[in-house]
Amino acid sequence: MTEFFRVVTPGQVFEMLASFDRLGSEKVKTEVAFGRVLAEAVVAPEDLPAGPRATMDGYAVKAQDTFGATDSLPGFLTVVGKVEMGRAPEFEIGAGQAAEIPTGGFLPAGADAVLMVEYTNPAGDGSVEISRPVTAGENVLGRGEDVARGEVLLKPGWRIRPQDVGMLAGLGKAEVSVFQRPRVAIASTGNEIVPIERSPAPGQIRDTNTYSVGALVRSVGAEVFSLGIVADDAALLRKAILRGISEGDVVAVSGGSSVGERDLMADVVSSLPNARILAHGVAISPGKPTLLASVHGKALFVLPGHPVSAMVVAEVFLLAFLRFLEGEDLASGLAGRKVEAVLATSIPSVQGREEYVRVRLELKDGRRYAHPVFGRSSMLSTMVRSDGFVRVPIHAEGIAGGENVEVTLF
Amino acid sequence: MTEFFRVVTPGQVFEMLASFDRLGSEKVKTEVAFGRVLAEAVVAPEDLPAGPRATMDGYAVKAQDTFGATDSLPGFLTVVGKVEMGRAPEFEIGAGQAAEIPTGGFLPAGADAVLMVEYTNPAGDGSVEISRPVTAGENVLGRGEDVARGEVLLKPGWRIRPQDVGMLAGLGKAEVSVFQRPRVAIASTGNEIVPIERSPAPGQIRDTNTYSVGALVRSVGAEVFSLGIVADDAALLRKAILRGISEGDVVAVSGGSSVGERDLMADVVSSLPNARILAHGVAISPGKPTLLASVHGKALFVLPGHPVSAMVVAEVFLLAFLRFLEGEDLASGLAGRKVEAVLATSIPSVQGREEYVRVRLELKDGRRYAHPVFGRSSMLSTMVRSDGFVRVPIHAEGIAGGENVEVTLF
Repeated sequence: MTEFFRVVTPGQVFEMLASFDRLGSEKVKTEVAFGRVLAEAVVAPEDLPAGPRATMDGYAVKAQDTFGATDSLPGFLTVVGKVEMGRAPEFEIGAGQAAEIPTGGFLPAGADAVLMVEYTNPAGDGSVEISRPVTAGENVLGRGEDVARGEVLLKPGWRIRPQDVGMLAGLGKAEVSVFQRPRVAIASTGNEIVPIERSPAPGQIRDTNTYSVGALVRSVGAEVFSLGIVADDAALLRKAILRGISEGDVVAVSGGSSVGERDLMADVVSSLPNARILAHGVAISPGKPTLLASVHGKALFVLPGHPVSAMVVAEVFLLAFLRFLEGEDLASGLAGRKVEAVLATSIPSVQGREEYVRVRLELKDGRRYAHPVFGRSSMLSTMVRSDGFVRVPIHAEGIAGGENVEVTLF
Repeated sequence: MTEFFRVVTPGQVFEMLASFDRLGSEKVKTEVAFGRVLAEAVVAPEDLPAGPRATMDGYAVKAQDTFGATDSLPGFLTVVGKVEMGRAPEFEIGAGQAAEIPTGGFLPAGADAVLMVEYTNPAGDGSVEISRPVTAGENVLGRGEDVARGEVLLKPGWRIRPQDVGMLAGLGKAEVSVFQRPRVAIASTGNEIVPIERSPAPGQIRDTNTYSVGALVRSVGAEVFSLGIVADDAALLRKAILRGISEGDVVAVSGGSSVGERDLMADVVSSLPNARILAHGVAISPGKPTLLASVHGKALFVLPGHPVSAMVVAEVFLLAFLRFLEGEDLASGLAGRKVEAVLATSIPSVQGREEYVRVRLELKDGRRYAHPVFGRSSMLSTMVRSDGFVRVPIHAEGIAGGENVEVTLF
């Protein structure tokens, strides 16, 4: 039996991943930029708004003309016009004058505040009665108050959210420079694996990893293409990996959980041109039989064959790496959203490896509980029954029931 | 000034939304089913695995033949074959016999356990020395232990995760029935709105809501098409809405924040054939000037024109509704993931309306803090500076600093 020859910690894997080159950039239309990662800084080319705008319906006034106005002692202003939406007012507000203005309207020159319509009353003679004072700037969104020209709004490496798309539009950026999306080549290896459309003969099983890992990859917006099912044959494995390296940015092969299959894969990878095995075995459970290599400067992940192990390793390392390739930070390690929960029962763990324990979440009496879902890593059903996982750090002996834990949803 | 004539609570809006018809179903390939919502129950048509499989490298044995074996008093078994991956073993294990088996291999008939290779030693004469006993079922994944035939694994209304895609594949389902994706027609209305490619003249502003609301819609996997920018003109508004209703499943128009624009929109909607205004004003802040109508049995949302208000109403009601149309539960109301945080400073609020306060998250000393981001709903930059929002319930007077709050990320 051959032992793993280069077992590394998860932290070391992240260091290795950080040494790969990021992808290049491309321009995309702003309307489809949601979810992409900025490759440029977004700097405001102009003030927003371009001039002062009313935030209420009412009258544009000079604030000083309203001082002292009350219900019992109202003031009177001469109405010199009406602000229309979408047009620059062609009049000015002089002393003692006002203009009707709708919410969103640009203030005419001379005005510095908006008096809400509730406190006004048209007097019928071309003037308006006002019963409240306003201060300068009241009910007005000043020029550049939303965004000031030259302000750095978003930085490279930022994943674009809906509000960011709106901001790009507001700044007049119809296109934006983003990192290219990684293309991931996926293969399932093993003599026992058959396509899902086929009814497995005795001794055979259907390919699940192409589908579960493929969906994980899609979940971070990367593209997937399948290299198919590859038998445990050195020439076929070699050919598939080389095709993946040539056509993709990353290759993820899930394969053999037996020693023989692992040895075959390690031999194949070592023999590839411009290849270097970075890790052969990772101190993580499930997922120890993971191989990481650099082939022609691109990353090759050999994930374990067990369906749960393949998904955990893909979630923890592959997805983080895909986000890194797109310009995001690797630091956090785990992709996906996190929630807090109370651990319902204790999790035992072995020191010296990072453990990922599947958990099912339950809301009870207003608290969120994480129930460990135990079961072998060959059981995909344990993933289907789970909502996420809890990470037990490499040097911990476990986590006691009742403690607060962070659950990464999947 | 016309007041809102039918102000309803957020709870009433959800009740109204629940009365619309859900979308129909369609078949999609399993490889692209991630993120779709199941329209059928997934019931296991067969046992997984189809027969007992080894979870370790070693020897397939009859457990009773290993009883009492130790390092000092090893047992000996006759090796009658080797299990190959992907093939049904053509031999049986009789009393006193064993067969080599790799991880994942199907057990030959007669064997009921796998003895790990670590505890074996080939004796050279066609037999193997064993130094540990195993119990029946040890290192074996039994037939149907992952999934039992007839088991209901997933129910209609469930949004498909990566592990579910893997499970569908494992069960041999190459296609799956899912709810159709909603098609959402979007328009921005207002005489002041210009396309983002154009440099706004004085009095004009660029269209942001088509982009921010469009991205929100995309974020839940729905499709978007734009009806363009529509001027404040009854005939044009009517035409745009009717086109949206005819070509889309839902129409979301963002429009006018002034009383005049709101009145015009309400008049246009009332005059449409088969139209009924369900809500005109919602007790929510920001977002009060929201109009909800049913037109030809389809939902029409008129979102406020202010960019923040438009996004909040779209996030709270429109996204929940899109998920509902796709078969998910409306109950939770809010789409999106939630995290807990400590409110950094108090939020004042007005009773009688639900308030959505933008917050920026900060991690400090291992705790997550939510800092309220104050600013007018006409400032899109306040959304860009925020990570999510905190909901202040309709009957609360606010939330005190230091309390735990739930933040919905956007």
